[in-house]
Amino acid sequence: MAISFTINHQSRQTAARTGRIKTHHGCFDTPAFMPVATAAAMKLLTPEQVRSTGSQIILNNAYHLMLRPGVDVLQQMGGTHEFMRWDGPVLTDSGGFQAFSMSDINSVDDDGVRFKSFVDGSMVSMTPERSMEVQHAIGADIIMAFDDCPPSRQDHPEGYLDRVRLANDRTARWLQRCIDAHVHSDHQALFGIVQGGTEPDERARSAEQVTQMDLPGYAIGGVAVGESNELMHEIIRLTAPMLPEQKPRYLMGVGYERDLLQAVQAGVDMFDCVLPTRNGRKAYAFTSRGPLRLRNASFKLDPGPIEAECDCQVCAGGFSRSYLRHLFMADELLGSALVSLHNIRHFQRLMLDIRGAIMDDSWSLLGQRWPVLGLEPAVSGPGEGLDDDSA
Amino acid sequence: MAISFTINHQSRQTAARTGRIKTHHGCFDTPAFMPVATAAAMKLLTPEQVRSTGSQIILNNAYHLMLRPGVDVLQQMGGTHEFMRWDGPVLTDSGGFQAFSMSDINSVDDDGVRFKSFVDGSMVSMTPERSMEVQHAIGADIIMAFDDCPPSRQDHPEGYLDRVRLANDRTARWLQRCIDAHVHSDHQALFGIVQGGTEPDERARSAEQVTQMDLPGYAIGGVAVGESNELMHEIIRLTAPMLPEQKPRYLMGVGYERDLLQAVQAGVDMFDCVLPTRNGRKAYAFTSRGPLRLRNASFKLDPGPIEAECDCQVCAGGFSRSYLRHLFMADELLGSALVSLHNIRHFQRLMLDIRGAIMDDSWSLLGQRWPVLGLEPAVSGPGEGLDDDSA
Repeated sequence: MAISFTINHQSRQTAARTGRIKTHHGCFDTPAFMPVATAAAMKLLTPEQVRSTGSQIILNNAYHLMLRPGVDVLQQMGGTHEFMRWDGPVLTDSGGFQAFSMSDINSVDDDGVRFKSFVDGSMVSMTPERSMEVQHAIGADIIMAFDDCPPSRQDHPEGYLDRVRLANDRTARWLQRCIDAHVHSDHQALFGIVQGGTEPDERARSAEQVTQMDLPGYAIGGVAVGESNELMHEIIRLTAPMLPEQKPRYLMGVGYERDLLQAVQAGVDMFDCVLPTRNGRKAYAFTSRGPLRLRNASFKLDPGPIEAECDCQVCAGGFSRSYLRHLFMADELLGSALVSLHNIRHFQRLMLDIRGAIMDDSWSLLGQRWPVLGLEPAVSGPGEGLDDDSA
Repeated sequence: MAISFTINHQSRQTAARTGRIKTHHGCFDTPAFMPVATAAAMKLLTPEQVRSTGSQIILNNAYHLMLRPGVDVLQQMGGTHEFMRWDGPVLTDSGGFQAFSMSDINSVDDDGVRFKSFVDGSMVSMTPERSMEVQHAIGADIIMAFDDCPPSRQDHPEGYLDRVRLANDRTARWLQRCIDAHVHSDHQALFGIVQGGTEPDERARSAEQVTQMDLPGYAIGGVAVGESNELMHEIIRLTAPMLPEQKPRYLMGVGYERDLLQAVQAGVDMFDCVLPTRNGRKAYAFTSRGPLRLRNASFKLDPGPIEAECDCQVCAGGFSRSYLRHLFMADELLGSALVSLHNIRHFQRLMLDIRGAIMDDSWSLLGQRWPVLGLEPAVSGPGEGLDDDSA
């Protein structure tokens, strides 16, 4: 096996567990939060800065890297670890989600997807085999199967169930093709992805199809595509236990603090989300009491850090809300860099505390420390409500 | 005195000298290169990253900080050191140069300048007294007199000499007003600025007017405003010896490597320039053999660093030209950050070597190590000629 997963502790009150995944590029603790370095760059942050946040594993997007710099460059430069100077574990998605959601799609059929490159407008063909080839070139430690992620019911109300069924069957067939194309090296672990939209029966059918294959890990895909939070949590609670208990479970593209906690308690081990960096660039700083909008005039003369309890390089380094606000008002990109750094550390501190809470089921204590989780009655504070911007 | 200047070594072949300036926030070695943190931010770099380049002193622009975040914010936040978390020496310019060169000017008269704020369009009045007030609030260790910097002969061919004379007289009168308004604290050293355009007689007259005042340091202003390189070097060689030998001499807003060397050899001790950061953001990487344009397709598969001999965090950290090119092609701002970091270190390595060359007049050796200085016959290499973009 390219990776090994050890469960260290199982919560008694919930399905949550702590563990450790060993990869060819080192270990990471679970439940794990993976910040997203889409194009082999964590936007404004150096790998050293990302490491300072306690991030142990990061994510690259195969879709972006395939189009730019291209497979040839990544291959000749020795893969993404060497290319971006990140020596820890890396996970790549298959490119499927982006091909479906971000592209001018020319055609989707049982073979794969044809879409227009956002780089040069050329037609690009993405198939299970091509996705494996791309992910082999990138060289991530964990790679994802190429799946068919159906749109949400809101975006596709007519014939939704049929579209979900079709996606499930394609996802299963494409998974087999991925497995056939995947060189079983010691280096790269292939995860399967469960689809099924918001249809409980289809979630069960997809989980059965996908877990028939003996793989080192399994993911829950097709959530956070437009459904309500309640429905998303329900689908996660329903799907997680359908995945093998001894294998890592990865929830793709989620989410806010409450979403992570819900999923952890359902037995999910891995997460990725662009929120810390994307919102950081928009002057949204996460805190344990909810986000701060740093452009707000109320911070003009505020000498305090984003969060006094935070140990990130920004808060512990003495950068004030006043200074951060100034950077955003003056379009100085250092503001985006600093708040991204804080935000990633925010999520890593949360995961650290969640891992601690799992050990002795101290969920109430966790809720006290993190009012944003909504476990305790709301406490008044600087929180200003959640940003609606989803992952 | 708010600062003290010790000359450690005097070159025997040239007017160059090495020394050390002690300020309220620590020391810096001369000849010194000061990178520019215009709005109290070195664009994409954290203070820690700036420190890693060996920069000992940085520059803030009073003009920008006055307009945003404003004097009230800087004062209440404890000045720029505390605000931007830079605990080393800081120098501020007076705001005069920017008020003249960057603003919609409403009027210039003997009292000062009235111009439109680029932040909110309001009319702003800048006088010697106001400049001192602003620079006091910013709290830099070295502050500059408010001067009248005349346009270049090219921009103002008719009546150029009269304009230069007027600027000199104003500069002298404004200097007296600055001195009167300057609180002689132990903390802030006020430097006078010599004008005179490209008129040798006017340079001499301005130097006489300005050095009549006993100040801790003197600057050469009004160069690199559009004149030829040769003429600029001539004016620097002419003006530097007119300034007191025992006081630091500061050449404002210059320049490329050759310009720095010329000025050092004329006896200049301090420099500031936006080139490393501004050109860095445009994918121009400085090397000892001349700049690289990192967007160039020739770097697509180049696994080497910007410069093998460079010890900056980028070159020593193993970031390849191929990766840096990718970052710029993908509009990933990490590229701007990394190349800015390298470029600042490039200038600091050059200053280090220049200080070494002064000690034993090893100028030929310096020229061998830094072909870009043009001291030796050109050597073939990765240099692609100088960027025309001036400071």
